[in-house]
Amino acid sequence: MSGENGIGVRRRRVDGEAKVRGATRYAADIPVAGLLHARPVLSHEAHARILDFETAAAREVPGVVAVLTAADLPMAPGVPGRLGEPLAREEVVFAGQPVALVVAETEAAAADGAAAVLADYEPLPVALDLEAAMEPGAPLARPGETVDHDEDDGRYSANVVGRRRVGTGDAAAALASSDVVVSGSFRSSPMYQAYIEPQTATAWLEPGGELVVSTSTQGAFATREGVATALGLPHDRVRIRPAPLGGAFGGKVVIVEPLVAAAAVALERPVRLVMTRMEDFVATNPAPGQLTELEVGATRDGRLTALRGRVILDRGAHKEYNVDMLAAMLAGGPYRWEARDLEALGVLTNRTSTGAYRAPTGPPVSFALETLLDELAGRLGLDPIELRLRNVLHEGDTGPDGKPCPVIGAEQCLQRLREHPLWARRDDLPDDEGIGVAIAFWPGGLEPAAASCRLDSDGGVTVITGAVDMSGTETGFRTIAAAAFGVPEERVRVEAADTSGAGFSGLSGGSKIIYTVGRAVEQAALQAREQLLDIAAAELEIAPEDLEIAGGAVQPAGVPAQAIEIDDLARRVLTFGSTYAPVEGHGRIAQASRAPSAAAHLSRVRVDRETGGVTVLAHVVVQDVGRALNPSLVEGQMTGGVAQGLGWALHEGLAHDEEGQLQTGSMVDYTIPSFDLVPAIEADIVEVPAPDGPFGAKGVGEAPVVAVPPAVAAAIAAATGIRLRELPMSPERVWTALTDGAAG
Amino acid sequence: MSGENGIGVRRRRVDGEAKVRGATRYAADIPVAGLLHARPVLSHEAHARILDFETAAAREVPGVVAVLTAADLPMAPGVPGRLGEPLAREEVVFAGQPVALVVAETEAAAADGAAAVLADYEPLPVALDLEAAMEPGAPLARPGETVDHDEDDGRYSANVVGRRRVGTGDAAAALASSDVVVSGSFRSSPMYQAYIEPQTATAWLEPGGELVVSTSTQGAFATREGVATALGLPHDRVRIRPAPLGGAFGGKVVIVEPLVAAAAVALERPVRLVMTRMEDFVATNPAPGQLTELEVGATRDGRLTALRGRVILDRGAHKEYNVDMLAAMLAGGPYRWEARDLEALGVLTNRTSTGAYRAPTGPPVSFALETLLDELAGRLGLDPIELRLRNVLHEGDTGPDGKPCPVIGAEQCLQRLREHPLWARRDDLPDDEGIGVAIAFWPGGLEPAAASCRLDSDGGVTVITGAVDMSGTETGFRTIAAAAFGVPEERVRVEAADTSGAGFSGLSGGSKIIYTVGRAVEQAALQAREQLLDIAAAELEIAPEDLEIAGGAVQPAGVPAQAIEIDDLARRVLTFGSTYAPVEGHGRIAQASRAPSAAAHLSRVRVDRETGGVTVLAHVVVQDVGRALNPSLVEGQMTGGVAQGLGWALHEGLAHDEEGQLQTGSMVDYTIPSFDLVPAIEADIVEVPAPDGPFGAKGVGEAPVVAVPPAVAAAIAAATGIRLRELPMSPERVWTALTDGAAG
Repeated sequence: MSGENGIGVRRRRVDGEAKVRGATRYAADIPVAGLLHARPVLSHEAHARILDFETAAAREVPGVVAVLTAADLPMAPGVPGRLGEPLAREEVVFAGQPVALVVAETEAAAADGAAAVLADYEPLPVALDLEAAMEPGAPLARPGETVDHDEDDGRYSANVVGRRRVGTGDAAAALASSDVVVSGSFRSSPMYQAYIEPQTATAWLEPGGELVVSTSTQGAFATREGVATALGLPHDRVRIRPAPLGGAFGGKVVIVEPLVAAAAVALERPVRLVMTRMEDFVATNPAPGQLTELEVGATRDGRLTALRGRVILDRGAHKEYNVDMLAAMLAGGPYRWEARDLEALGVLTNRTSTGAYRAPTGPPVSFALETLLDELAGRLGLDPIELRLRNVLHEGDTGPDGKPCPVIGAEQCLQRLREHPLWARRDDLPDDEGIGVAIAFWPGGLEPAAASCRLDSDGGVTVITGAVDMSGTETGFRTIAAAAFGVPEERVRVEAADTSGAGFSGLSGGSKIIYTVGRAVEQAALQAREQLLDIAAAELEIAPEDLEIAGGAVQPAGVPAQAIEIDDLARRVLTFGSTYAPVEGHGRIAQASRAPSAAAHLSRVRVDRETGGVTVLAHVVVQDVGRALNPSLVEGQMTGGVAQGLGWALHEGLAHDEEGQLQTGSMVDYTIPSFDLVPAIEADIVEVPAPDGPFGAKGVGEAPVVAVPPAVAAAIAAATGIRLRELPMSPERVWTALTDGAAG
Repeated sequence: MSGENGIGVRRRRVDGEAKVRGATRYAADIPVAGLLHARPVLSHEAHARILDFETAAAREVPGVVAVLTAADLPMAPGVPGRLGEPLAREEVVFAGQPVALVVAETEAAAADGAAAVLADYEPLPVALDLEAAMEPGAPLARPGETVDHDEDDGRYSANVVGRRRVGTGDAAAALASSDVVVSGSFRSSPMYQAYIEPQTATAWLEPGGELVVSTSTQGAFATREGVATALGLPHDRVRIRPAPLGGAFGGKVVIVEPLVAAAAVALERPVRLVMTRMEDFVATNPAPGQLTELEVGATRDGRLTALRGRVILDRGAHKEYNVDMLAAMLAGGPYRWEARDLEALGVLTNRTSTGAYRAPTGPPVSFALETLLDELAGRLGLDPIELRLRNVLHEGDTGPDGKPCPVIGAEQCLQRLREHPLWARRDDLPDDEGIGVAIAFWPGGLEPAAASCRLDSDGGVTVITGAVDMSGTETGFRTIAAAAFGVPEERVRVEAADTSGAGFSGLSGGSKIIYTVGRAVEQAALQAREQLLDIAAAELEIAPEDLEIAGGAVQPAGVPAQAIEIDDLARRVLTFGSTYAPVEGHGRIAQASRAPSAAAHLSRVRVDRETGGVTVLAHVVVQDVGRALNPSLVEGQMTGGVAQGLGWALHEGLAHDEEGQLQTGSMVDYTIPSFDLVPAIEADIVEVPAPDGPFGAKGVGEAPVVAVPPAVAAAIAAATGIRLRELPMSPERVWTALTDGAAG
């Protein structure tokens, strides 16, 4: 699938060498003159009224410049959520919530100062258990918060801030007339994004009053909007300089910037906050804990009929992160349904506020649905892949959003997986081993984007976007621009300008960077190419359509003797007195159609019946990626997604005690899959070109994480006959289930 | 002439308040962590072989980090001129040439270190007198330098590196058949640009290897090209961040940046050089000294026939700044000539290398030509304005470059000046007073340019260029963008991005910023407006051509009830899931035709016959500006140009002793016109719209300086009968001429 234009060629990431060499400057490494360091003071109560602060001792610590509380911050009035309240005002609503910020000349002084701040609280009732919090009359996690729905049937408490129904057809009737119905209730914990680099931001005021924020963020423009809104500034008075990301996975979207910016404005000095790992665990934005209750109906011959149930999301202490409907939509998977009826509920609790994590809400709902389908296949005596093939979405079918499904390679992934030699061997395994499969759907995101492509005066090509590089997207832009312009990749440099100079780009995330910004890059490069050909045509006195770009030169097609080197042309353009306009293409994109993707998984596990320990022996992921611009990077995404999916499946989960204290606030207590826990992962690329993607490419980052938990669960079931209903499937839970199963 | 669209409305400069408040951060003020400070060691010889450096003492000065000489700098081989040789190698060629750079932790240590460096020289013959240096056999200022012409008639020494002839018709015959011929030889000294802020640059390496240079420069892209060439780097490895200019006037074009960048690369630390005033005087790039010899012929009825002569420019010690031909072209002024024959000569001497200064070569050649025309008018008994009106260029006449002259308002300026009440009173003055007139032509420059115009998510409009603000050009861009887009100026912000993110812009200078970059801004804003109207049309379900922008909203023409606020539209565009592409216009321009300008002057002076002192009592400048986008700023340019012209006329000039030592290396010795020396200047705007300029505007910066010296000279002649032939017309020179005249 690799072509002369460089599409499909394996290449290293342009940022790889600097990262490996340790030369990359992350947000905490960027030198800033006159810098102050900040350390937050965190609430130790999960829910309490703030009575008083004792800050005198902190102020006396040598080097401490200021102890800021909410009243000291220049926040715009009336901005809802954590954006408007980076330090708690009268009430703390989760343990770990920042209540003060100590700013000092050194990091050590800031830490000493923070340790010396005393806060006096009056404890309030704590809402932690998701179902208990939903009960009418339950203590409210955030008294006074409004709900975002107008249902008033008395079923739920006011902690249920989000309540929507999504569906089509008569699900009750369809279930009633189904030949088989399977059902279950599935749980998962809040999940930490576990990026290597903690949340970090630095802010300062330029003398003209411009506020500059240098930060580890997924979205420069989103952060600008957030900071400007929080501080009540026009957007053009805020400049965001995104630093290279040391991991993000959805978790770095306007978390610490409003606080740091407010401190810099208040103190008129540069202020930096680099969160400690513990602060990052308790005070940022993990993925919501989820409870998914589903009933699935089917006909005897394996046609899915109806899906009914509830998807409940724990939003933690702020209601702003609302992905209830996305969860309900994804709960239907990549399948055709006669009828669907799902209630989506968002519930406030006294936990850390929530945010996005790679394929938000995907793994828990996929765990629920795919586990039920695996049971269903067993009940029907059908090959689980065959069951899925009979129901999988094709282009034009009604998709999860009720609209016709765009081109999707779900069937191709299942077919490919069925041919895998391990699948044939699934019944020929040692007793303690099992193989399971599952498939995921990811809808892909859309957001407008712009990009520029400039020919420099030495013949180099510079691509300029406002997008933050995530997982090698700039390397992808380079491939796209080189192919579209017709020059070798070595000639192309990709620049992420800050918000003052770049064209608009949305958040890096949502499997949409390559699909949207990449498309704008393609447009910009094509436009620049056309401009250059017009200039060469004028110089050579020949029609532009008779020209070609080859070997770094423009020439009449097939006549290298008349070639003009691109650098020579560039010099003729960008010079005093030139009559040629600069060669600068500009792409602006609003993708009208999504490019959903599918990833099918096969997992082979061994279960230790003595300990409940599950070892993944092999894992295969087959993903429809549209077109692999650079297979090395695509495989990296698929492999990384599976590794994180194994974390969901077996290891990870934030746990709180009954007072709301996080019990897993360190990398010792919160187990992400380490090298020894991840098997060799086989990444198999399926290419079903996305019609509107650049060279057929689409986003590939999220699909591979989604269906890992159900594939592992199906493998555990194949090995043991035990169906697990809660993530992670820790040794304790597996052992308990095995013990209960043996007992029952 | 002011309209509803804001064109022609008087407004303050957007950068004005910060500058007045002292809040602007100039290049020397920008905080950089870990900064080292540099101090150059300058040659005290004007021409010598470098035998040895004694640097041990300097290295021992506490705080000194390095003493760099030419051998320590990582310059690319073979780069000609001062660009490739920021420190002298084997030979020094002017007194003041940097020979070493001391880099230290503090400015004081660097200064102490520089004072401790000893250089041992073997003196070589010095070439200083322009005419002597041209003589065959004269000592060479730069032995080994090649000449840029292939004339070998033995007339000149090899110091004459530039030698071209420009002309049309048979000038000798035309002169021979003229009724009157006047002639003269006119001199001027090298001129210092006398910006308030000295040359300043800071450079450092980013960890990924990118070289960043923060500098006071007129051209970000030109500086990038210069630094990249000097160090042999690809252009995209060099990022230039232009700082606000504290004055430049042509003098800030790649002077200190290669040296500072080379030091930063060599030491792998950030390095800053802020020149002292004395260093800036002796080691930068003053305007060339000039010698202009002209013969002018005319018919009895005042029709100009022929122009013949030589224009000789002192290039100083480097030959790269070559404006010989420009001088020869400008020597013809804004007039029709039957025949022209001019020799343009560029001569190397052991003076500081030369560079541009507002209207390069203009004032000296205008002094020569206009003075001769004033004499001619006297000889013919014609009103000097009438003489000029009979010969002045109109659109379509053959212009100085041999091509048809574009639209030009020279005649209108003369007509307007003739109506000035002072002109009627010219014969009715006290004995020691006189009134003189002159008119100047300035061709205007051309260079490609690009600009972007982005609608931000709060409805603000951001214009992005790579142009350095000079004399309020960003304020002009704002006016242009607001008028083109149809929004109030308050909504528009202009951003000068650095070279990594901006579209290409050429140097700020050459009276072309508004005419070229401004036109690109207009295009970009119009394109953005169209995009916004398309979106509003889709939202309102109406044809875009039926929409208008009024009061910050888009509405069906005349139907404010259906208006949608622009900020509301912006929010609908720049959001997750939006189906609208970002509103981002992009202009790219190559102006095909120049927009020349003319400025007519009237000066009223009083001459003190006892001292030779000339007091300017009044000065009127009438200038064709195309269209005054903002009359306040245009008048500022006209007034400032006249003030600098008075410096040329009466006060300024770099003087060297016979060994090549600068005798005027401080603001005490080099007199720029201070407040008490500048009269109230009357700036009268003539508007003859430039067909290709934004809203008819064109560059206005250079024309007003050019013809001040001849206007003052004509006024002195009117007061005293004395014709001066050398600038500045200092009291000594005037007194001498008066004395000689009285004697003769």
